[in-house]
Amino acid sequence: MLTSNDKKNELLLGIDGGGTKCKAIIMNKDNEILGTGISGPGNPLHGFEQATNSITESAKLALEDAGLSHIKLDELVAGVGLAGVNLPVLLEKMLSWQHPFKSMHLATDLLIACLGAHNGNDGAVMISGTGSCGFSCIDGKHGIVGAHGFPHGDKSSGAWFGLQAVKQVLLSLDGLVPQTAMTPLLLAKLNCEDDTGLVEVVATQKATFYAQQANLVFDAAEQGDAVALSIVAEGAEYINDMAKTLAAKKPPRMSMLGGLTARLKAWLGEDIRLMLEAPIEPPEVGAVLFARQQQGKQQDKSAVKKSA
Amino acid sequence: MLTSNDKKNELLLGIDGGGTKCKAIIMNKDNEILGTGISGPGNPLHGFEQATNSITESAKLALEDAGLSHIKLDELVAGVGLAGVNLPVLLEKMLSWQHPFKSMHLATDLLIACLGAHNGNDGAVMISGTGSCGFSCIDGKHGIVGAHGFPHGDKSSGAWFGLQAVKQVLLSLDGLVPQTAMTPLLLAKLNCEDDTGLVEVVATQKATFYAQQANLVFDAAEQGDAVALSIVAEGAEYINDMAKTLAAKKPPRMSMLGGLTARLKAWLGEDIRLMLEAPIEPPEVGAVLFARQQQGKQQDKSAVKKSA
Repeated sequence: MLTSNDKKNELLLGIDGGGTKCKAIIMNKDNEILGTGISGPGNPLHGFEQATNSITESAKLALEDAGLSHIKLDELVAGVGLAGVNLPVLLEKMLSWQHPFKSMHLATDLLIACLGAHNGNDGAVMISGTGSCGFSCIDGKHGIVGAHGFPHGDKSSGAWFGLQAVKQVLLSLDGLVPQTAMTPLLLAKLNCEDDTGLVEVVATQKATFYAQQANLVFDAAEQGDAVALSIVAEGAEYINDMAKTLAAKKPPRMSMLGGLTARLKAWLGEDIRLMLEAPIEPPEVGAVLFARQQQGKQQDKSAVKKSA
Repeated sequence: MLTSNDKKNELLLGIDGGGTKCKAIIMNKDNEILGTGISGPGNPLHGFEQATNSITESAKLALEDAGLSHIKLDELVAGVGLAGVNLPVLLEKMLSWQHPFKSMHLATDLLIACLGAHNGNDGAVMISGTGSCGFSCIDGKHGIVGAHGFPHGDKSSGAWFGLQAVKQVLLSLDGLVPQTAMTPLLLAKLNCEDDTGLVEVVATQKATFYAQQANLVFDAAEQGDAVALSIVAEGAEYINDMAKTLAAKKPPRMSMLGGLTARLKAWLGEDIRLMLEAPIEPPEVGAVLFARQQQGKQQDKSAVKKSA
């Protein structure tokens, strides 16, 4: 068995912290995944304390899963990709975190997703999960489409689909738009009888709650429900437009990922579907690839220093 | 000068508690307003503690304004109209409040607005302020359209107009919809330079913040801005539909009120504008009228008891 000392320079921690959960992996130098851990929300926008707790917790769970509980967090080099840190104020906050790792390389969740999807190479990704966005990484230049958050942005995300459904169902219960099958479907799913009951359930709910209602919209659309079809068409049109904006930058590869991918893809334009290639690795592996890149840059710098 | 004892049976407190502020008036038996007070948000959905503090605070300010600081709250009969208490769970919570008044008659903000607008008589109202809704009170029967809250409902409210503006401006900054004059107008108003700056300002903002951006949409629409015109047209169409739904119940009078009324009215259908009559009294007077009605009912009941 390797001792703590033998291992400490070989192990990398990869973190993918999103609005719903935080995923961690432990990888060895041969890029083998030794263990994984999942904890609560990792987006610092919804709470710095919660995000940093989730990161630490998921890292410990990943070590445990790898049978490496004797390794301490301060022996790990961490690549950490987080939702929200595209905002300068949150990036600063996270960089000021007294983190428990040996070193921490911080990136957006978008960059690590893109690095993972294209195994560290250039490319573009579209993401639709709880939130939505587009991202490209070409010749070291990053481009972002969306990634604005909910409810003011994140069109065609799970949260957006869920909110559109709730809005339309409430209007239909007032008789202001026609009622379709989606109205009783949503009321039944949320165990409500009328608009007052529905409002009690949804009042003050956040993106994650609304994202949990997104599949119902696709279920209804697949059954031909007119309101659901119109919501899905509007969402798909946004992703089509996003894909065209990203494609204009000529990425070598383009992928789509996030929890809604399987359902949304079928509704995209055929030209868009043909552009999409399967992601090679998940974002948490992208986080490890990012940490390796950053370590490489640091070593390059110290090599330059020594030769100077 | 009247003593505290002489006054206590003559004075009524009227409270109109909304999402942005809580207004109180003190009225004497001749329906003269002796004093007014304004405090913070009074909608218990956004905090029971805050709402009850706002109610108490505004009442004290109204007494002070009337030069009646020597009168105690437990000498006042209060009519209290609150946003949010159309939800049974919030109604129960407010009814369980150990309020400081002699007695409290609790109603929705909609009912007191309607009673005020028609001076205690039957009628219907449409409200567009921070939130939006329609309400009718005819032969003792209440009808509600909307009043669902933000962001899932409250179409054509101040918050809705502001959110639509932010959404469209963010899409325009990504190049996914055309940029119009509204984009630089909103960025300048919120002191931002780009989409990242705008997202930092709007992230986690609530209805009241968005409602503060509504006038900018109307300003832009009046200048012929295409995006603003399309937002205003969609909002006005919703109010037109709401008016038709209410008119179908044949209310003797219909009024529109709330902070956006003056701006929205100009964009409504002519048939709708012709239906609208000016509100006679404000909602806080409606709250006093409600308290009087409830006291009357109680006296009727005790009269029945005595004669029985």
